[in-house]
Amino acid sequence: MTPSSSLDELVEALRCLPGVGPKSAQRMAYHLLQRDRRGADRLARGLDAALQLLHHCARCNSFTEAEVCERCLSSRRDASQLCIVEMPVDANSMEQTHAYNGLYYVLMGRLSPLDGIGPKELAFERLFARATDGVVKEVILATNFTNEGEATAHYLSELLHARGLKVSRIARGLPVGGELEFSDAATVAQALRERRDFV
Amino acid sequence: MTPSSSLDELVEALRCLPGVGPKSAQRMAYHLLQRDRRGADRLARGLDAALQLLHHCARCNSFTEAEVCERCLSSRRDASQLCIVEMPVDANSMEQTHAYNGLYYVLMGRLSPLDGIGPKELAFERLFARATDGVVKEVILATNFTNEGEATAHYLSELLHARGLKVSRIARGLPVGGELEFSDAATVAQALRERRDFV
Repeated sequence: MTPSSSLDELVEALRCLPGVGPKSAQRMAYHLLQRDRRGADRLARGLDAALQLLHHCARCNSFTEAEVCERCLSSRRDASQLCIVEMPVDANSMEQTHAYNGLYYVLMGRLSPLDGIGPKELAFERLFARATDGVVKEVILATNFTNEGEATAHYLSELLHARGLKVSRIARGLPVGGELEFSDAATVAQALRERRDFV
Repeated sequence: MTPSSSLDELVEALRCLPGVGPKSAQRMAYHLLQRDRRGADRLARGLDAALQLLHHCARCNSFTEAEVCERCLSSRRDASQLCIVEMPVDANSMEQTHAYNGLYYVLMGRLSPLDGIGPKELAFERLFARATDGVVKEVILATNFTNEGEATAHYLSELLHARGLKVSRIARGLPVGGELEFSDAATVAQALRERRDFV
């Protein structure tokens, strides 16, 4: 109850977490101190270890403890395909399909001028260096179909085309099991525009 | 992208925060590692310091770095009144009214049988020892008007009455500036039941 410096500092420090405002930070601090001191200690240790050990994979830009991550080192993957995703979780989604066996490049974000995130912040030069290693033949753009993800895909496709690479974009359309009645008009329109020959 | 032990461990550790599920924990971990490493370090330091320095005030049970917190030590407060609140933030709300000058006791929770929180977990014996110090004349129950806060107030009032203390409960009714039209029926009914002589 008395303003306590280390309590205030903890509340302030918790606000670095995305989506955590002053009220939740306070709630979290009290919860940790009152109900989960072991969890708090584990979190402190986890943060320390992650900060010390994790850095970007020299090839795919995702997080790894090694110089190059296991996936990039795998000899069973098709090095001629490079799939560009926004975040590591997106690569995980691709992996779960078991339909892709190429390599990845993780942007660690998306173009977002309003947040001050441009080509420099995302280090596009590293991506271009990676994509023009002579082995990559096709770049598959798998950024999200949000406005920002789309803008990022368009921007990258121009610059990658200019470097003589084949560039593709994952498809939009109705989801598997999707029904026209319950799909939004934009998705149905897109599915119509991108219709394929039925064989 | 390769499952990385320290990354997984950080994600897991973040889940000790209340209201943080697997998805948010992942988002938080990536945010900290990618965009706010200084914040992550500050959080680790803040957790360590708070765990080391903060403990319960011997008198009011709130968090403090000292043996007894400043508020309990203050000689300008009326030691005959003891206000019982659920959490330190509730005491702060009371303080902001500038209408109370007594002391506090912070339960650090509320009775919640479903979560396994009973009188033992809240250490009611400590509260009874505090309230029966011979100086306290009136105990003001200021737990929340939720089901659990109400149950806690009822439970405490019986046991405090049995110890010969005067026990009161903060009032329910319409908020200041409140309009009947926009108040819920239960609140209006309560305001009617607890009507006072108009002088």
